[in-house]
Amino acid sequence: MKIQEIAAEAKKASAIIAKANENQKNSALQSIADLIRIRQGEILVANLRDIEEAKVQGLSSSMIERLSLQNKLSGIISDIESVIKLKDPVGEVLEEYLHNQLTIKRTRIPIGVLGVIYESRPNVTIDVSCLAIKSGNCAILRGGSEAIHTNKIIVGIIQDALCKTELPKTAIQLLESTDRSEVLKMLKLHHFIDLIIPRGGAGLHQFCRENSSIPVITGGIGICHLFVDETAKIEKTLPLIANAKTQRPTVCNALDTLLVHEKIAFTFIPKLITQLSKLGVEFRLCPTSFNIVKKEQLEASYQLAKEEDWDTEWLSLVLGIKVVSDLNRAIEHIVKHSTKHSDGIITENPAHAESFCRAIDSAAVYVNASTRFTDGSQLGLGSEVAISTQKLHARGPMGLKELTTYKWLIHGDYSVRT
Amino acid sequence: MKIQEIAAEAKKASAIIAKANENQKNSALQSIADLIRIRQGEILVANLRDIEEAKVQGLSSSMIERLSLQNKLSGIISDIESVIKLKDPVGEVLEEYLHNQLTIKRTRIPIGVLGVIYESRPNVTIDVSCLAIKSGNCAILRGGSEAIHTNKIIVGIIQDALCKTELPKTAIQLLESTDRSEVLKMLKLHHFIDLIIPRGGAGLHQFCRENSSIPVITGGIGICHLFVDETAKIEKTLPLIANAKTQRPTVCNALDTLLVHEKIAFTFIPKLITQLSKLGVEFRLCPTSFNIVKKEQLEASYQLAKEEDWDTEWLSLVLGIKVVSDLNRAIEHIVKHSTKHSDGIITENPAHAESFCRAIDSAAVYVNASTRFTDGSQLGLGSEVAISTQKLHARGPMGLKELTTYKWLIHGDYSVRT
Repeated sequence: MKIQEIAAEAKKASAIIAKANENQKNSALQSIADLIRIRQGEILVANLRDIEEAKVQGLSSSMIERLSLQNKLSGIISDIESVIKLKDPVGEVLEEYLHNQLTIKRTRIPIGVLGVIYESRPNVTIDVSCLAIKSGNCAILRGGSEAIHTNKIIVGIIQDALCKTELPKTAIQLLESTDRSEVLKMLKLHHFIDLIIPRGGAGLHQFCRENSSIPVITGGIGICHLFVDETAKIEKTLPLIANAKTQRPTVCNALDTLLVHEKIAFTFIPKLITQLSKLGVEFRLCPTSFNIVKKEQLEASYQLAKEEDWDTEWLSLVLGIKVVSDLNRAIEHIVKHSTKHSDGIITENPAHAESFCRAIDSAAVYVNASTRFTDGSQLGLGSEVAISTQKLHARGPMGLKELTTYKWLIHGDYSVRT
Repeated sequence: MKIQEIAAEAKKASAIIAKANENQKNSALQSIADLIRIRQGEILVANLRDIEEAKVQGLSSSMIERLSLQNKLSGIISDIESVIKLKDPVGEVLEEYLHNQLTIKRTRIPIGVLGVIYESRPNVTIDVSCLAIKSGNCAILRGGSEAIHTNKIIVGIIQDALCKTELPKTAIQLLESTDRSEVLKMLKLHHFIDLIIPRGGAGLHQFCRENSSIPVITGGIGICHLFVDETAKIEKTLPLIANAKTQRPTVCNALDTLLVHEKIAFTFIPKLITQLSKLGVEFRLCPTSFNIVKKEQLEASYQLAKEEDWDTEWLSLVLGIKVVSDLNRAIEHIVKHSTKHSDGIITENPAHAESFCRAIDSAAVYVNASTRFTDGSQLGLGSEVAISTQKLHARGPMGLKELTTYKWLIHGDYSVRT
């Protein structure tokens, strides 16, 4: 099917799924979980086929790891069961008041039709579909070409589950064409699609932002900073930095640049470099920190930072370190280089914490915590469809509520405006 | 100044105005009101110059009426004083909870830099500036070329008021160039500008949607419907329809299409046509209503509706009327033709009201009230910067709160993700 037809079908289906009640939506999700369990053989065969083809194409082992569903299905099934337990956001009354002799309510409703564009990981197909269904939305999924066999089977299963529960199977559809021109057409269908959610690298986000006439949630790019203030407790700060940098270095909420107050630089930096070096971290250092490391003759892999390093999302075991003279210089650096994803301060000074929180307008601002917490389940949203770093509609992790909007319901008594 | 420089200045100023407290922002607004009162002579001279030039250019009298500030300044001053009385939305804690041993808060913050593109009315310059300042935002204003002399004086006054209260004068700036290529450049400056708000006709909204890499609030186009159900109290419905259609026919929340239940069509339509004809309304009629009017030999200006009439926003004293067999046909028509602005039902049947409210996902859905209430002050928001008909971020009237977003503030105790 062409994207225009897919989108028109989604628009029709959206009016039906928007009205589905919580039981019906949960039944569909349970049925998806059951069918994945029953048909896991089929899924894994298709997935192996994708993996074989990826190997022939010469994809990297980390790409293949992301593509693979081997040993991941039981986790996926339990994730679906977690979404079933989440409260249905649709119908919630956000606000209700009397004004002008009218009863005015703002009521939560689904957004409508979501267009989700993502890369290799086929578990995204299931995650996004389940969150879309639970929030009463339709989704058009455009996964990466390398996962096409897996995605076809999965979307087939989801559609079977929708049919079983008498919901329209076109609520979840896969755009099978891997032609980029189809994506370009999709980005112009604002009469049918209400929101585009890209999940992937900076290039994909830029492509969507520049070509879409539909609102786009940009995000996923995190140049994340932590500032270690002079009052930070050093022994407690070291494991925090290690967590932020090394727990999962390939993701957007991993630490990229560490700013250190000059008053503690000489004691803190050698300890940090020594500890992180053991975890395989390499360093890009400002002149001051470079000199400290050199003078102390630390065993570490390091080099002098170039200016562009401060604007680099490392996505690997690389850490930039810069010594700053005070809180304001730290804030200045972050304001200049942050992608407004996750930035934090480590301090025992409440006034500094407050100034930092006021000055930094990133989606998530931390005091004495790792940037790795910017995640739907870590912040208690249950599950997430994406992380937004733009200012409109939603910021940070987007869970079920962030897949909804509202309408004004206004009841009068044959009321006229005077 | 070129738009790139203006935008870079706005970005710098936004960090300062975002932190301004309510008193400081209110002082700036009071100072604007005072300076408008003191310098009204200057404003009116500049405005007369615009009006003279507009007459030479042959602008319509309704355009000239919109351009004119004669006798409007005291109203504008009292509007500013109303904005001063509104509660500052910045800093409000939207949500606060403990999770994962973290204290998690979602806190309201300004959006940042707004780009507002509008046409002739120079009072928009003042309205938007005051709402932007009160909500801690910066604004780049691009008004119509026909109001350029007035807008220059007004923005000068606003900047003087900002300086007086020690807020950055670049918080409010006018893009003086009337060259469309400058607007096109502005729409690409997503590193500096956070939101584009077009205020004008469908063409302007389309231009912004298609060319902007910055999120755009589209709206302002209202093909508004009312459905008169069989149980509607006819004598009370007639003035409601008259209000929706004729109170101010040139605006987006005026009624465009009336749907009438066939069971009451023969009694209701003749009464309606007779009453509205006296108010100067002309009609575009479906075959059934056409035959009723013809048979009754009513004195009215009417013609058979063409298919495209149902997709027309009249913005004038024209009303489409269509007889439908039941509630579901009315809903179908609205779903097909609505621009998701304002649609309503007139009924005494609560089940029908509920079905209608569920099925229609317009920004404002009415039961027994005129569509004319879709307006910030009518709904108790105080004042509005625009009316959104898209699904993201804000729907319907956008007041102060809708000019804000949020950030997550997360406090830990040297917390790491496990």
